[in-house]
Parts: sequence; structure tokens; C-alpha cells
Amino acid sequence: MSNSLLLRNVRPLEGNCVDVLVTDGVVSRVGPALEAPDVPVVEGHNGILLPGLVDAHTHLDKTHWGQPWHRHSAGPTIQERIADERRVRQRLGYSPAVQSASQVRQSIAMGTTHIRTHVDIDTEIGLANLEGVLATRERFQDALTMQIVAFPQSGLLVRPGTQELMTEAIRLGADLVGGIDPSSMDRDPVRHLDSIFAIADQQGTGVDIHLHEPGMLGAFALELIAERTAALGMRGRVTVSHAFCLGMVDDAYLDHLTGLLVDNRIAIMTHGPGHIEFPPVRCLHEAGVTLCCGSDGIRDSWGPYGNADMLERAMLLGFRSGFRCDEDLELVLDIITRGGAEVMETEDYGITPGCRADLTVVAGETRVEAIMSRTPRIAVIKGGRLVAANGNCLI
Amino acid sequence: MSNSLLLRNVRPLEGNCVDVLVTDGVVSRVGPALEAPDVPVVEGHNGILLPGLVDAHTHLDKTHWGQPWHRHSAGPTIQERIADERRVRQRLGYSPAVQSASQVRQSIAMGTTHIRTHVDIDTEIGLANLEGVLATRERFQDALTMQIVAFPQSGLLVRPGTQELMTEAIRLGADLVGGIDPSSMDRDPVRHLDSIFAIADQQGTGVDIHLHEPGMLGAFALELIAERTAALGMRGRVTVSHAFCLGMVDDAYLDHLTGLLVDNRIAIMTHGPGHIEFPPVRCLHEAGVTLCCGSDGIRDSWGPYGNADMLERAMLLGFRSGFRCDEDLELVLDIITRGGAEVMETEDYGITPGCRADLTVVAGETRVEAIMSRTPRIAVIKGGRLVAANGNCLI
Repeated sequence: MSNSLLLRNVRPLEGNCVDVLVTDGVVSRVGPALEAPDVPVVEGHNGILLPGLVDAHTHLDKTHWGQPWHRHSAGPTIQERIADERRVRQRLGYSPAVQSASQVRQSIAMGTTHIRTHVDIDTEIGLANLEGVLATRERFQDALTMQIVAFPQSGLLVRPGTQELMTEAIRLGADLVGGIDPSSMDRDPVRHLDSIFAIADQQGTGVDIHLHEPGMLGAFALELIAERTAALGMRGRVTVSHAFCLGMVDDAYLDHLTGLLVDNRIAIMTHGPGHIEFPPVRCLHEAGVTLCCGSDGIRDSWGPYGNADMLERAMLLGFRSGFRCDEDLELVLDIITRGGAEVMETEDYGITPGCRADLTVVAGETRVEAIMSRTPRIAVIKGGRLVAANGNCLI
Repeated sequence: MSNSLLLRNVRPLEGNCVDVLVTDGVVSRVGPALEAPDVPVVEGHNGILLPGLVDAHTHLDKTHWGQPWHRHSAGPTIQERIADERRVRQRLGYSPAVQSASQVRQSIAMGTTHIRTHVDIDTEIGLANLEGVLATRERFQDALTMQIVAFPQSGLLVRPGTQELMTEAIRLGADLVGGIDPSSMDRDPVRHLDSIFAIADQQGTGVDIHLHEPGMLGAFALELIAERTAALGMRGRVTVSHAFCLGMVDDAYLDHLTGLLVDNRIAIMTHGPGHIEFPPVRCLHEAGVTLCCGSDGIRDSWGPYGNADMLERAMLLGFRSGFRCDEDLELVLDIITRGGAEVMETEDYGITPGCRADLTVVAGETRVEAIMSRTPRIAVIKGGRLVAANGNCLI
């Protein structure tokens, strides 16, 4: 398949209507009425041109997408949900390769060109989920950029053998080391964090830690993470996902924590959760913290929500943040595009000449209207190839 | 247009596939493989049959739906937004008749058969918004049941002349008397509530009051509302919309307020707001409080959110309530159907023989999946007439 094309009649970030010439996977020219007789033409129908959407936090290995409806009845705590997930997984026996491919195709249809996925690693499933997701990554390598986080969902220290599996996961192809709630899961925040940072340091990877811990417990974990980021010279390579605590501490403590994030270039991922406090994105952005956003779990044993549409996620993050002004919602759009790309260390990201041609076209009078209307994506282009059109994945 | 039809292949609330015979606007038979050679056939494609959705709180007169995008920049307080709305309204000069019709058509397409709308009444616009919405109600009378609340958006006592306009609004055809934040808007909770309850008592209408006031200020207003409901014998005819305070007080005080709501049969409307505490719907439901839900403002000067889809609203209310279990989300579906119908005092509501044929058919393996997937409505039937099909309003 060719990776050159002429994308006609699009409005870059709601600007004036132009054509975009893509040559060998790269945006080569942007301007009105371009001529390129030898390449395929994709009609943009005057849609808004965005860089490819970035889903910077999901769980591809666990979705039930495309499978019969799963009736949810798990209890409300994270521990109960993890236990329920274990039972559901055993009962249903879905293939992580099949399921992750199912969500990836939905993501591509929705205009996502980059995904960072956490993949469960534990002593029961071993590396099976990772192997399935690795197969999906290879299968869709021309249609999607995927980073994989080796994720100790069931704890690290409390399940001896998990650390070795995490190291093995990195060797097999996982890109980052994950972690989870160092006090409440492993009951030992220092040793949990020392362990995951040690693996990352040895393997030369970044870190992306799930931190659901509330209030000062979470704030303490954030301080420990910052200390280790500095000590190991990992500035710019650490993400904290969820970080609910940033929405719970008082303003003075938030300032202190924000300073740690900025100084250590620690990124924050929030998906705009429904029912709990979460990071104040406008305030963090203005302080200079890099922010990204993701779908989190989609239609899995944790909950029935989600459809892999990052524009819907943007609406939800804006809704939860109390954003009504266009300027604030444009920040959210920035988070689901440029912010996520920065966290994923994506080079040449954007819609200007010289950028890799990862592009999404969506109908909308303005960017914010596009977030609110969320019509089927007109065209999705990955590395110069048309991978989705009119809401349908072509891969 | 005939108001008899045969709706084929639908699953009542996800039950077994049946046909539904509608005769003279009423569900006359429900069962497998019905024969009715003389009536039009509507194919349900094995979709889930729901009673018509009820949008029990919106602002039809103020939507910008269908108009060029309005860039939002108003400040965060309710007072700033009201002032901004006044400026925007004067600048744009939209017709309340045209705008309300635009939203009504979108609502019908989304499967809504009943709307309770608040309509601004104040000394600047007088009754112009009401007249526009009354025209829309008449125009769509066969396609939608509409209740109108005369709503003193800008205050009652602080704008002399508003009370007289409210009374005149009821005479012209508004069904209920509205109110708003009796302490913070009118600076006099007792006299505000006495005034609106007096109009309702004189005119023989119900009351639906916007109560955004937080914490104990809102709780105090709720107590005053309950006292007046009891004193005037208005049990079952009073709704409090928003009632954020119910999500803010401690458990003991919540019990006390819940008791007042149950004793006085006061209904609560919540739309599942994005950024503020709101009523705990599971807890209120179990105590016996009638609950309903609505779109609130859709794409107006208050904010850019909303699309008139009550299934999306159900998703948002579930999302904000922390609901993951199907049982909880089924309660939300009950709120956007039966609960709203009860608040609107709709007789013969439902999907069994003898009920008025106000029906919505939507694809979905289960009711909860339908809320999560929100595909275009297969068919919407109002009083036995097909008013929308395949996501398009036919009126």
C-alpha cells in the first residue's frame, strides 16, 4: 500500500481550507489547491484536520469489546474488582490477542494513531496477556503506534515471582515498567517503588505508575516517585496515571506537588474519572506539567463504559473539569493530541510539513464543536496510509 | 397519518422477541408473530423496546442547536452566566420558536417522547420565549408531550413585574410555576418561595424549582419547600431540580431531608452534573423518592455540552454516580423513563397492553449495553405514529 497521498479540503485545527500532500509517510506540503497527479486522493470534506489522537492509557488485554455483554456485579473497592476480574477472566477465557485487536480496530476507526497500553503481568497469567498484545502490535504496526507498559495489576511484592516476570516482559518487548498503589497494594511503598524503578533503571525504560491512592497517602507516593526520578536521572521518563490525590490536597500542598512534577518532568495522565476527585488540568498545565489522557479500561470486568473515542474522552474530561469555555476545551484537545504524543516521546508529531503523516479528519465547525458532536471520523491516516474512513477501520 | 401500526421484532426491556400491535394510539397486543394485515408495519430489527424517553428538565427556549457555533467565554458563577446569557441573547437574536423546534426535532430523533422544559420569564424578554415554545408545542403536539415551566431565570423579587408575568404565563399555557435559588438570587428565601407557591396555589399548578444552592443553604431551602408543599396540600406536585445540596450534607442530615422528600412526595431531578456534588440517586430511590433526569441546557450560552440524547444522559448520570453494575444502570434507565413519566404525571405510560403507544426501539444486547453504545434509534413511536426512524426525525 502506498504511503503517499493527497488529502484534499481539510482545515488544520479549524483554520482555512487547504490540501495536504503526504510523501513517503511524511507531510510534505500544506496549502490551497495542491496538485499531485500520481498519488491517491483522499477527500476531507472540509473537515477539521487534527494530528492523530493519542490514547495514552488503556488496557487492551482486558477489554470485552466485541464479545457478548458481561453483566457487572463486582463490589466497589479496587481489591474486590481485581478479585472479580480474576474470576471473570477464568470463566470467559478470552484471548488477549483477539481482544486487543478488537479494541485497536475500534480505536483506529475513532482516529487514534497512538496507544499506550498497560498489560497485566502476574504469577497466574504470566506473560500470556503480553504475548497477545505483542502479537496485536505487530499485526497493526503500520496502522498504529503502540507502547506497552508491563503492569503488575495484582501487586509486585505480594506475589513473589512478579518482579522476574516484569523484567522478562521488558526483554520480550514491553516498553515501560508499570506500578500500582505502592502502599495499599504492596503494603510497602518504598520497596514497591524501589523495585519498579530498579527494573526500569536496569532495563533502560521509562515508568508509568497507576496511583489511585487518595489524599495524603497518594501525595506521599508522589513524593517518593519524584525522589526516585531525580536520583536515577529519569526526568521526562516517568508518568503517573490517575493521581487522584492531586485533586484532593489543599492548594498549598498542590503547589508543592506541582513543583515536584515540574522539576522532575513527571507527566500526569488523567482520564477524567466519573466519581472521584482528579488532577486539576488547567492549573497543572499552567504550571508546566505535561498532561495526557486515555480511555482507561473499555467495556471490561471493571466497568461497562467507554468506546475508544478520544474525542468522547475529551468531552468527559472537560465535563468533569467544569470546562465550558472554548479555550479550556481546546486545552483538553491539546492533551489528547500533543500532550499524549509528548508522553509517548513521539518525534515529528503534528500537522505541519516534516511531521509524520498521522492525521485525523473530523467534521466540525470548530475543534470544540467536533468534541461535542463526535461524528464518524471522515479519514484517519497513519504514516501516510488511509487506515479508516467514514467511521470504519480499513485494516 | 394513521395511529395504528404493527411493530415487529422487538424485545421489551431486553426480553424475548415479540411483535407489538398498536391500535388507535394504544398498545393493544404484545406477543410473538402477530397478524394485522391492515396496518403499516414497522420493523424493529430485534432492538430493545423501551417506553418513550423522558427529558424532564431542559431549556428549549435557549438552545443554539442548529446555529453557528457560539464561542463560550463567560465567567464561572451563575450570576456571571446569567449576565452573559443576556448579552449573547441580544447579540444573536435567535427566535425561541425556531430554536425550540430545532431541539425538539433532535429529541424526537433520539427517542424522547416527553419533555418538561423551563422557559425564561423576565421583565426584559417578557413572554416572548414562552410564546415561541408554545408555538413549538402546538406544532409538534402529535409527536411530543411537552410540559412548560414558567421560569424566573433572573429572579422574581429583584425584578418587579416578574410575578405578574409568571401568572400571565400560566394563563397563556405554561403548566408549572418555576423558581430559582431563593436565597442567592432573590436574597429572601421565604418571600421567594411564598410568592411562587402562591402563584401555583392560585393557578392550580405544580411547582418545579431550580435549586443550585450548596450545602446547608440549599438544605434550608429544601426544608422551606417541604413546609410549603405540606401547607398547601401540594404533595406529589413539586419537583426540585438539581438539589446539589443532597450530595453535600452529611448522612444524618441527608436522612432528614430524604424523609421530608418522601413525606411530601417531592421529586428530585438530577442531570448528573460534571463538576459539582449532586443527589445520591441509589440512596434516594431506595428511600422512596421519585427521581427524574433531563438534558438541562443543550449547546446554549451556558455551555457547549449535550445532544438531547437521554441515553447519553443516562450514561453520564451513571458515570457520575460511580455506577458500574448493571443493576445500578438499570435504575438510571428507570429514571429516564418511568421516573420522568411519574413526575410529568403521564398516565398510561409503559409498554404493556393498554398503555399509550409512546415507544422507542434501540439496538442493544441488553438495556445497559444500549446506554453504553447509543446507536441511532431504530424507531420512535408517539401515540401510535412513527415519528423517527434510523436516527432521523420524520416530523
